[in-house]
Amino acid sequence: MEVYLDNAATTKPLKVVIEAMIETLESTYGNPSSLHRKGLAVERKIKEVRKTIGKEIKAKSSEVIFTSGGTEGNNLAIFGVLDHLKDKKARIITLSTEHKSVLNAFNEFEKKGFEVCYVKMDDKGRVDLSHLEELLQKNTVLVSISYINNETGTLQPIQSIGNMIREKSSGAKFHVDAVQAFGKIDIDVKQSNIHLMTASAHKIHGPKGVGFLYVREGTHIKPMFFGGAQESSIRPGTENTPGILGFGTSVKELSKNKREAYESVLTLKEYFLKGIVENIEEVIYRNGETGKVSPYILNVSFLGVKSEVLLHSLESKGIYVSSGSACMSKEQNYSHVLTAMRLDDKAIDSAIRFSFSRYTTREELDYTLNQLKIIIKDLRMIMKR
Amino acid sequence: MEVYLDNAATTKPLKVVIEAMIETLESTYGNPSSLHRKGLAVERKIKEVRKTIGKEIKAKSSEVIFTSGGTEGNNLAIFGVLDHLKDKKARIITLSTEHKSVLNAFNEFEKKGFEVCYVKMDDKGRVDLSHLEELLQKNTVLVSISYINNETGTLQPIQSIGNMIREKSSGAKFHVDAVQAFGKIDIDVKQSNIHLMTASAHKIHGPKGVGFLYVREGTHIKPMFFGGAQESSIRPGTENTPGILGFGTSVKELSKNKREAYESVLTLKEYFLKGIVENIEEVIYRNGETGKVSPYILNVSFLGVKSEVLLHSLESKGIYVSSGSACMSKEQNYSHVLTAMRLDDKAIDSAIRFSFSRYTTREELDYTLNQLKIIIKDLRMIMKR
Repeated sequence: MEVYLDNAATTKPLKVVIEAMIETLESTYGNPSSLHRKGLAVERKIKEVRKTIGKEIKAKSSEVIFTSGGTEGNNLAIFGVLDHLKDKKARIITLSTEHKSVLNAFNEFEKKGFEVCYVKMDDKGRVDLSHLEELLQKNTVLVSISYINNETGTLQPIQSIGNMIREKSSGAKFHVDAVQAFGKIDIDVKQSNIHLMTASAHKIHGPKGVGFLYVREGTHIKPMFFGGAQESSIRPGTENTPGILGFGTSVKELSKNKREAYESVLTLKEYFLKGIVENIEEVIYRNGETGKVSPYILNVSFLGVKSEVLLHSLESKGIYVSSGSACMSKEQNYSHVLTAMRLDDKAIDSAIRFSFSRYTTREELDYTLNQLKIIIKDLRMIMKR
Repeated sequence: MEVYLDNAATTKPLKVVIEAMIETLESTYGNPSSLHRKGLAVERKIKEVRKTIGKEIKAKSSEVIFTSGGTEGNNLAIFGVLDHLKDKKARIITLSTEHKSVLNAFNEFEKKGFEVCYVKMDDKGRVDLSHLEELLQKNTVLVSISYINNETGTLQPIQSIGNMIREKSSGAKFHVDAVQAFGKIDIDVKQSNIHLMTASAHKIHGPKGVGFLYVREGTHIKPMFFGGAQESSIRPGTENTPGILGFGTSVKELSKNKREAYESVLTLKEYFLKGIVENIEEVIYRNGETGKVSPYILNVSFLGVKSEVLLHSLESKGIYVSSGSACMSKEQNYSHVLTAMRLDDKAIDSAIRFSFSRYTTREELDYTLNQLKIIIKDLRMIMKR
């Protein structure tokens, strides 16, 4: 049996997504900027996708800027807001558990003299709202917080954060990395006072190499690339049309029954977690009440069993998981997210991320549970020798 | 009959390219950064493509950095070299006929205090080497010149330019926008003293949304995006695997008989041009001796017939061409390239770009010639009334 539980790293593109891409590659291959109908045909299709995405997040389609993915989106948001600010001592706020594409971009501005503040979190990695309130001052220009953490699934109270920013630092822009949230939970950019929001197609059964940045009307950001007038000149370059049309198809497909999928994944996750806790000893898991953590991600430490060892043992049984996030896996052996959450080394060393999709089945989880029981027992036996 | 003569704007992806993409989307959909075999499988395939491309330009595979396309490549090269230079008064050199992704990036650095110099050109748009020699001074840090101009097909003496840069300004980096050249002519980055070179997949029957920047070993460029460690940390972000594998397939396919294709396109272009000149009056064309212009692009002015009118008349007969470049078509009515070449307004107003591919046939060109004769005659009649 093959069980893919690494959906937070990337997902399998849907059949309909691939079909939409093939159609574009074969038939509507024109350059959207061409004046003849081969250009117009595909430009019209891109417009449709923009509309689909706008509707999904309660935004105008003109506020959707296509990018090459999450890393570009996060960088474009941060550089876009900060790069032309004259006050280099302004305050920018984030969490130490953010994705490296946010943290490393913030580092660049720290070097330039910006004051970077990290909001305190509770033991589940959730923002300490009273600390955020303290940090929000008149000179705050940007707050960047992810909707859902990619390693732990921690779901932030985005609406409360957005409202607080509006009240306390009305001049500050609120950027949300929604890479793990878009297509999975209901997002209302206006209600949550979001100015900029990043999403990526390949996390929701779309293709790699495409994403979007929501840029609220009136939010002026400086482009990172200069060139033609594509994407309102905010992101020039010939559009990745197969990517965009594949993305649009996955958004349409996933928006159909988003809440039902959410509920069913939640049920599966609880079932899986119960199975682990009841059958395997010395387990530490990071979960929280419903609404405070994403059902799509479960981070568990099997104490005494090194993450990578377990990962490869599961792999030998056809089960695919991550230790930490995929993006960071080759750079370092520890997770900066779990470290920032002050987990002890034992828990960090043995952390495994199971990440689900709406297509994950109970049978797959039963198989995984069975294998886990056997493998953990075996590995612990070996270690004791 | 349908005749697509807008191959400089974009090309139709090859069947084998689409097949390679489908394979990746369906089977090797893992995240290359994942530690399990779903990650390794696709990482290995990316390595193969890097090798194929390296071989094609006589570079090491480690010198190939995948990007989202030509605009990103050009910007990454220019920002990468200039963004961390302390001497803001250094000289940077380019041509006024370059693609907007070069010119507009240069503008950004002109604002920052860099001295931007434009090399003089002859009436075909070719670099005036003695003027370049004058401009190359000790404080020159970057020269950016395209291999082949996207509107006129002008082919620059890249090797002579590269050698001159090495001799006169050994500290300067040489960036070549090879978007219209890669996959069509033989390129040797070492021999031509190229430090940075941009290419794009969709100009050579690959997919949109992917390209590469060649970065010579030892050339330190600052990344534009910050995040994970992908692409040697020069270009973080989950790899566009279907795009990269599609690109690799098109490179492999086109490298097979590049010279034969070049010769056959050259023969077709000469045939087509002869047909125009012999049958249609008041025509101005921009061509040059073999080796000084790309056979893949032909820019012709049919005096008195507005470009857009002719473009749409041809379109009604199933023939697709461009007025100027696709990237600029919606921004402005005149071509900055032809303006920079000091063509008179009449020639600029009536300029049409025919751009061929190795799959263009003589039948298609015969049909186009016939339609051209009729349409030009009709349009000129109408205008005379």
